[in-house]
Amino acid sequence: MSARRLFTQLSRVTGKACRAALSPSPSKHSSECLKPLNTSKFNRIPPKPRRGVLLGALTSSSVIAVALGVQFQESKAALHEESKEAELSNSVPDIQKFRLAEVERHDGASENPWVTKGKSVYDITEWVGAHPGGEVILHAAGGSIDPYWNIFTIHKRQDVYDILEQYKIGEVDDVDLVDGQVPTKAIKDPFTTDPVPDERLHILTAKPCNAESPGEALSEFCTPNETFYVRNHMWVPSVEEQEHNLVIELCDGTEKTYSMSDLRNRFKQHKVTATLQCAGNRRKDMTKHARQTNGLQWTVGAISTAEWEGVKLRDVLADTGVNLNNPSPDDKHAQFLGLEAYGASIPLCKAIDPSGDVLLALKMNGDTLPREHGFPLRVIVPGNVAARSVKWLRKVVISDEESTTQWQRRDYKSFGPNDTRPDWDAAKSIQEMPVTSAITSILNGFAVAEGTEKGLNVEGYAYSGGGREIVRVDVSTDGGKTWDQAELLDDKAMGTKAWCWKRWRYALGESAEGKTTLMVKATDEAYNTQPQSYSSIYNARGNLATAWHSVDIKSLDKGTD
Amino acid sequence: MSARRLFTQLSRVTGKACRAALSPSPSKHSSECLKPLNTSKFNRIPPKPRRGVLLGALTSSSVIAVALGVQFQESKAALHEESKEAELSNSVPDIQKFRLAEVERHDGASENPWVTKGKSVYDITEWVGAHPGGEVILHAAGGSIDPYWNIFTIHKRQDVYDILEQYKIGEVDDVDLVDGQVPTKAIKDPFTTDPVPDERLHILTAKPCNAESPGEALSEFCTPNETFYVRNHMWVPSVEEQEHNLVIELCDGTEKTYSMSDLRNRFKQHKVTATLQCAGNRRKDMTKHARQTNGLQWTVGAISTAEWEGVKLRDVLADTGVNLNNPSPDDKHAQFLGLEAYGASIPLCKAIDPSGDVLLALKMNGDTLPREHGFPLRVIVPGNVAARSVKWLRKVVISDEESTTQWQRRDYKSFGPNDTRPDWDAAKSIQEMPVTSAITSILNGFAVAEGTEKGLNVEGYAYSGGGREIVRVDVSTDGGKTWDQAELLDDKAMGTKAWCWKRWRYALGESAEGKTTLMVKATDEAYNTQPQSYSSIYNARGNLATAWHSVDIKSLDKGTD
Repeated sequence: MSARRLFTQLSRVTGKACRAALSPSPSKHSSECLKPLNTSKFNRIPPKPRRGVLLGALTSSSVIAVALGVQFQESKAALHEESKEAELSNSVPDIQKFRLAEVERHDGASENPWVTKGKSVYDITEWVGAHPGGEVILHAAGGSIDPYWNIFTIHKRQDVYDILEQYKIGEVDDVDLVDGQVPTKAIKDPFTTDPVPDERLHILTAKPCNAESPGEALSEFCTPNETFYVRNHMWVPSVEEQEHNLVIELCDGTEKTYSMSDLRNRFKQHKVTATLQCAGNRRKDMTKHARQTNGLQWTVGAISTAEWEGVKLRDVLADTGVNLNNPSPDDKHAQFLGLEAYGASIPLCKAIDPSGDVLLALKMNGDTLPREHGFPLRVIVPGNVAARSVKWLRKVVISDEESTTQWQRRDYKSFGPNDTRPDWDAAKSIQEMPVTSAITSILNGFAVAEGTEKGLNVEGYAYSGGGREIVRVDVSTDGGKTWDQAELLDDKAMGTKAWCWKRWRYALGESAEGKTTLMVKATDEAYNTQPQSYSSIYNARGNLATAWHSVDIKSLDKGTD
Repeated sequence: MSARRLFTQLSRVTGKACRAALSPSPSKHSSECLKPLNTSKFNRIPPKPRRGVLLGALTSSSVIAVALGVQFQESKAALHEESKEAELSNSVPDIQKFRLAEVERHDGASENPWVTKGKSVYDITEWVGAHPGGEVILHAAGGSIDPYWNIFTIHKRQDVYDILEQYKIGEVDDVDLVDGQVPTKAIKDPFTTDPVPDERLHILTAKPCNAESPGEALSEFCTPNETFYVRNHMWVPSVEEQEHNLVIELCDGTEKTYSMSDLRNRFKQHKVTATLQCAGNRRKDMTKHARQTNGLQWTVGAISTAEWEGVKLRDVLADTGVNLNNPSPDDKHAQFLGLEAYGASIPLCKAIDPSGDVLLALKMNGDTLPREHGFPLRVIVPGNVAARSVKWLRKVVISDEESTTQWQRRDYKSFGPNDTRPDWDAAKSIQEMPVTSAITSILNGFAVAEGTEKGLNVEGYAYSGGGREIVRVDVSTDGGKTWDQAELLDDKAMGTKAWCWKRWRYALGESAEGKTTLMVKATDEAYNTQPQSYSSIYNARGNLATAWHSVDIKSLDKGTD
């Protein structure tokens, strides 16, 4: 079904726009772009890895190309070659040698992509579908992966090495070595044109840029653009607005292309205030209070709120030909594709719900969308995990199935505390977020002069997905034995439902004297509330760390007051 | 605004239908009905009680006419008469005497309704609005409340006596006593025509009938009509289908009347499978594990599932004149009124949402709606607390405000664990339910032969409101330290969203040997999960007792196997 094929063409990483990145046909790519790939065999449900490893030990961040291995209960994947399997199980007494010319034939367009690392040769055919970074891995196929890993340094970890090692099929023939090494070609660092992040942001990784909002940004209802948290899976595409188009593709193959000018002038512009939150927000707390989780160790700042402005996705879909009142039975999902190869989807019912407020946003807090937040066009899916608000949007595909990307099928899901053999296909993608809250005005270990904690004003946020309003925030100073209610602060939000966090304030009183831990939990309008412990919701990926949030206060010695 | 006035006319309680109960005008009542009341002064937001008492000590079940007192922070209600207040505060040295003729003038139509109890006289003006049973209390006004309390025996409790005592203004003059007593008139017991409940149901109260489903009924996906839990606030109205009409009243005063035949023949019939759950389900557990709660002490059986059949409320509203695509700004709530005086409302957006599946149901599990479940017509609001699925539906009022009944404004709300001074007006009515689960195949204290617990199959349900599907059920045999996943059972539900409970099964294994407590918690598709403890969600009304459900297994002595 070519109409739904996901092309992994990448925008060029230099300053000028890459028109070919928007082209539906691989043959139209610009020579300046990274080579397009024949990925039709990979772009459906990812195959299961040949030999898995325990989730808890090996799953990793959602950052591009981090390996993620799973011990599947019924791994039925065919072996590459029986003879090679035998070799491997015999501790590889006779290492098979491959000429580099043969390796090069196993490029991204091949049925069996190979890579080299050092002198070793790996057949990654079965890994491509499970690669958290998606099919970008195919760019390295046919040659050495080392120069890529020198840029995407997040791969330089033992657990990633272990995964690759499973796919080893031999080594490069000595006759092709130069000074005893496999010659590698230089590749361009795609991150060189990334915007420089605001220095107030707390940087977790630089390439790709992942940075959380500082406390002062979290104290405002709308987060300033400069200090809005950044969550990138890859580099920031460079594109000129006048050269960017959005393609909408329907189930019946209909395609329609919209320029940014079309979107700006032909459709009614709407403003929606919405909070975006990463599924990994507060992951660090889960690691601290339960056990190791794999992924970016966010504290409370992988969440921000902005006023978004643009067109309603439903209006554009109606223009393309979707029957909003009676969609075809095949119209089940709206898949979003970004310029940098990231992709995700939401149920079509959310996309076309008049109360769903799903936007194609061109502006953020009144300004042009900043590059790191998706310029020139991004999706905003209020109430859902931010991973669905795809940035640098180049295409929307209406489909009978969810996006086939890793980020839809193998990441942004959650499993039971002891679930080391998750059934990925059966698990529901995270869409609406559960209720959560956090203290933001003071950090863990905040020091106060002895006795002055009772005069402290504490602030924070509470948020629930699906537009469910926060109805109560409870604060405890005695470890959850008793609770009092925080004041919910007014806000001026635009939108059909409660898409935004609720900011709250609590003045500690006499009863707080000598108490060293503050705890907070929120309740939303469906009266869902937060779990008490991280251990009860532990999952190896550390997603949705929504347990009661606590902050320890440290007393200064009297003399230091 | 007469168009939105709530009349408290009651259907007659004998076998024949009371047409007057459907009449919009008090003057048209049948002489067979209980007297109509001029309740215009009571039918808005209830006034605050003159002198409150602590919520924890006095709030009570949602059963009709049980007293509910609240200590309000700023009670500004005017005193009835300064002089009487002075008398009361002086320990009533000179008791004021009233002739019965004067008492009789303070009937339900009076500005200041009085009642007598024993020889005492009470001015209940300020209590009417706070009475959990609604304005039904006015039927006793002008005379003795004793014959009513002899039928509604749930009032015979010290906390209710205490509330009444606050409103004492004097005593009946001795000249009107007969044999030293205030003469009382006989009143008809409205419960005499109630259906006899199935003997398998667990009866909590007989008048009104409140009965929970037995374990065997909870083991089926659709609960049989006979063992579907019963939650009545009053008696079961007797009405003939051919004499029953539904009135729809719009904001602009438009009224349209539909016979049952109209609903059956003029509108498309739909089937929706939906779970109904009382806000008090599992309240008994909250009492046991936290502290005293006021209300019916349900265990796990105030929940059942049925296939409902009828017309979509949105279709009927469209026929009456509601613009479904662009409702008027005043069209905010759909208020439902039952024949017996019960009333509640839902937001209009839910009522008209094509995915909301709100039904006016005429059939239940393929049969005519049983009398105790709302014959001939009831509302079904899938995903919301069952208190909104009003039975014996006589009228739908589209309004800019919520239903003004106690059940919308003063009951079916929830507050913080320590919230003894709740702001009722600021609190959101419970609509969508939070995620919950329970073990149903074995009851607490279930006895097994020592060592055989490891061969036990356990079953139960999990449910979440708002149509949010259950994605996982976790079972623990070690007090929540570790969890395993239960098997989710297939079901055949009809409807747009996941309106039904998910039944689950878990086979205990070797690891359960010697373990005595089973625990269960569920997660829904928004990844909300249940709180660990009842204390963290405690509220004096005992609503939404959704903490992890646990069942203790008792080991039989070896000899008794």
